Parts: sequence; structure tokens; C-alpha cells
Amino acid sequence: MKIGIIGGGSIGLLFSYYLGMENDVSLFTRTREQADLINEHGLHLIKRGIEQDTVQVTAAPFQEWKGNDDLTVVAVKQYQLDDLISDIRDKAKRSILFLQNGYGHIKLLSELETAEVYVGSVEHGAVRKNGFTVQHNGMGVTRTAVFKGEAALLGELSTIAPSGFPFILEPDFKEMLIKKLVVNSVINPLTAILKVKNGELIHNPFYYEIFKRMFDECVYVLDLPNRAQYFQNLRAVCEKTANNHSSMYKDIENGRQTEIDAILGYLLELSRSKNKKAPLIHNYYHCIKGKEHEREGA
Amino acid sequence: MKIGIIGGGSIGLLFSYYLGMENDVSLFTRTREQADLINEHGLHLIKRGIEQDTVQVTAAPFQEWKGNDDLTVVAVKQYQLDDLISDIRDKAKRSILFLQNGYGHIKLLSELETAEVYVGSVEHGAVRKNGFTVQHNGMGVTRTAVFKGEAALLGELSTIAPSGFPFILEPDFKEMLIKKLVVNSVINPLTAILKVKNGELIHNPFYYEIFKRMFDECVYVLDLPNRAQYFQNLRAVCEKTANNHSSMYKDIENGRQTEIDAILGYLLELSRSKNKKAPLIHNYYHCIKGKEHEREGA
Repeated sequence: MKIGIIGGGSIGLLFSYYLGMENDVSLFTRTREQADLINEHGLHLIKRGIEQDTVQVTAAPFQEWKGNDDLTVVAVKQYQLDDLISDIRDKAKRSILFLQNGYGHIKLLSELETAEVYVGSVEHGAVRKNGFTVQHNGMGVTRTAVFKGEAALLGELSTIAPSGFPFILEPDFKEMLIKKLVVNSVINPLTAILKVKNGELIHNPFYYEIFKRMFDECVYVLDLPNRAQYFQNLRAVCEKTANNHSSMYKDIENGRQTEIDAILGYLLELSRSKNKKAPLIHNYYHCIKGKEHEREGA
Repeated sequence: MKIGIIGGGSIGLLFSYYLGMENDVSLFTRTREQADLINEHGLHLIKRGIEQDTVQVTAAPFQEWKGNDDLTVVAVKQYQLDDLISDIRDKAKRSILFLQNGYGHIKLLSELETAEVYVGSVEHGAVRKNGFTVQHNGMGVTRTAVFKGEAALLGELSTIAPSGFPFILEPDFKEMLIKKLVVNSVINPLTAILKVKNGELIHNPFYYEIFKRMFDECVYVLDLPNRAQYFQNLRAVCEKTANNHSSMYKDIENGRQTEIDAILGYLLELSRSKNKKAPLIHNYYHCIKGKEHEREGA
């Protein structure tokens, strides 16, 4: 399969590495410098502390993307999508898979005229070490679902993916994304503001009180059925990643922009449009925005 | 005037130093070790970086307190009062002034049989440097009010206090304590969790959103009239102490117990008894309790 991957961050590098093992992958980066580095060094991946075999892909700056690969994987942060979406709309000719967190980008996808639009939810942990090296430190899965069109290509993706990098086809894109959104809405901002590892949210009895109330507000704003099922999933993720620092914790620690707008920003807007009170979502949204603002002021 | 002071923390040392300049002060400490240190070295005070003249007071462990000074000043934290109150009730013969933050201790004061019971609200900044040395780094005032009995002794206190350590007699003890409670409820927990100086709460536009909502919840739970007046006072304190770290910020940073139970714990209980929703008070109460719990677990 000919695969184009847009984005040279941790997820873009991770997907390029694994899918590039057996397929013809073109990776499109923001800067020409990064593309040159990748073409020169190949892609490096570190797993359990050990550097794996290098994988060769073809890298180029995003301006050179033509949109004619069998599948294009869009692996940028949601807040970067606004700048790219008009180019994607104009050039995309084949199937396209969006990996953004949150739910706010869904309205952009309706504007695409290409026949197949897919969405995905990444459950891997990855850290970009440099422009051509990624560390794969949380072995998970990628869930995919159809937003529009036929699922055939997603099925094919599941079969061609190497072991250790599985794809799972989900029946309902909305449920898949909302499940991840609930997890991100509770774990990310709380751990980033309380400065704790994920597991503390359930093991510290005081933080667990906040955890439950934050979950309740998400359920209320999203009008979720199957409350118990979403809670069980949230708790399970927290247990499984108990010793990890969340991505938002790390973004705040490192003075980087977070994905708060895609996560709590979306829920805050939703609560306003539904005229529902969401004091904790409002609070943690502003805590994180305030942290980002501190950095800008510094 | 013969003055007894209970408590060898920053406020107890500060009051002993200033009142001991012209009066016969006995200071009662938790440990005999601290009393010995004070009797040996005298009281030291550092102001604007400069060590002031030493003041001699008589120090003794609290067990030796007889309750027969003209005025006893109780300068312990509210959470330490429970352990002392039955001794104070049994022994107090003369006027007594309580300096605790919050409002939860007021119910204990009704049980006292002594004729004059006063309450105070301390607006000085002070840090205990060692058992006999205090640093006075925020020059403020002490507001006092009558809880029960005659105001005469409080008037006398205003006249005998040295310059640089003024006392102001307030007409309404409840309004005085509640004003301070509102200030402490908003500034202390927010600065401690967001890890910022007081001024950031009004200068960072995102934190200011939280600041206003937290204030609104306090007004709602306390059924405050004169909303604008309390808000103006809160803002003024924040502006005046913009470059300071709040006491709760410092308590959390240094792994000490905070006064959260006297402050948000009181409001949380009040919200429950009035059947009022107070999601932010609930949240920040549990954030701070969780931080204290982290320390205990460590």
C-alpha cells in the first residue's frame, strides 16, 4: 500500500516507522530540515531502551504532498489542523485517516469531498527524541472507524500492520472518539494541575473524589448513555497507566502547548450550547489555559 | 498589662516580640525545648532584612499556663485549638483573644465562661526562622472585635501597642472574620494549587476567571450581602500582596499541614448544611487535602 503520513511529531514518526517496514511510506513534515534529516538517517525507534533496526521512508515538506497515496494518515495535533485543512480539502484524492484527539475536528471532516474519511484513536505512548527518532514506550493499539465511505481499506490496514503495532476496526466512530475524549478530559487536566502520575487519581482518596465529579460532569455535558461502561473504561486506563505521566502533564512541565482546546475546550463549548452548568470543566480548562499563558508571559 | 501568649509559631513569636517591648509578656510554647531557647536567647525579630533589638519575655511550656494574665492571646492554628480548648475553658480567668483564621472555631468560643472573649484577624506576614526568631516581612495591622463582654481591654491594647504593630478595633466580629475567610478561601487554595504568587490570580486572565467564580461560590454559600464590597476587599488584598506567596502555597511547598479545614472545610460543611451546591469549594478542598495526603504517604 502507498501511504502518506502528515506530521513529523511523535505519532507521525511512530506510524511512519511501523507502516514503513512493509509499505511504501512518504512522510510529510512541517520543515524541510526535518525531512532532510529523515532522508539522511532513516527512521530510528527505541523500544524498551533498545534501538531497533532503521526503517527507510521518503520524507518531504508538507507543501509537496499531492494527496494521491492510497491512504493518507493525518498525524498532527488538533490545534494544527486548522492550518492544514484547506490544503487537505483541495488536494486529497484518496482515503484519509485522522488521528486527532477530541471531537471538535469532526465538523471539519464533513467538508471533505474525498470518498473515504476515517478517524482513529491512538493508544500508544510515544516520545519524539529528535527529528528522526521516536521512543515507543507504551505498547497499545490504534482503533479506527469509518466516518464516511467504505471500511475496506481499514480492514486491509489491519492485515498489513506489523505485529506490535495492531489496528482494531471499531463499528462506531462517535463512541470510539467520545470514549477517548472522556479519558482525556478527566486524566489529562487533573494530572497536569495536581502534578501527579495517572494512578494517583484513583489511589489518593481526595483526588478520587475530584476524579468522580469530573467524570460526572463529562457524562452530563455529553448526555452519555451507559455511564457505568464509560466509568469502567476510564478507571481501567488509569490503572493500566498508573505509573505514567499524562501527555498534558508532560506538555505543561515542558512549557509546550497542550491539547486542552480539543479536549475541555470542546466540552466547555458544548456545555454552553446546551446551556448546562459545568463548573469543573470550566475550572480545569482555565487552569490549563492559565498555565499556557504563564509560559507565553515568561 | 500582663499578657499571656499561647503558641510559639510565627504569629505567637511576632505578638510576643512587639507586645513584650513595653509589657510583661509570658509566652507558652508546646515544647519545653522552645521555652528554654527563648529564655536563653530572648526573642529576635528580623525586619526588612535587619535584625532588631532583642526583647526579653518569660517562656514556659503550655502546661504551666495558669490563665490569670490580664489578657491571654491564643496564637495557635485552628487545627491545634481542639487539643487546647478544654484546658483553656478550665483555666481561663480573665480576657482572652483568639487569632485563628476561618470561622469554624466560633462555636467553641461560646463554651467559654470567662467574661471577655475577643477575636482577631491578623494581617501581618511573618515567618518563624527558628524557635526564638521571627521574620516580619508583611507590615500590616491586627483587627480585633468583641465576641462576648466589654471592649475596654481591646481599647487599651490599641493604645499600648508599639508603633509598627497597630491594633484596630472593629465593630462586628462576624463581618471581620468572614471578610478574612473570603480572602483566604479564594487566594490560599488557588495559589497553592496553581503554584503562583497572589497577584497572578488577577493578572492572568484565565486564573482571574476562576478567581471570580470561586468568589461567587463563597458569596452564595455564606449568603453575603454587599457582594461588591467583599469583592473590592478581596481584589485589594490580592493587589497589595501581588508579589507574595500565600501561607497555604508555602505550607504545601514545605510539606506542612495547611489550614484548609478551617477555611474551605468550614465552607464545604456550611454548603452541605444549607443544601447548596459548591463544586469549586469541593474541588479545591479535595485538591489541598490530596496534597496533604501525598505528603503523609511519602
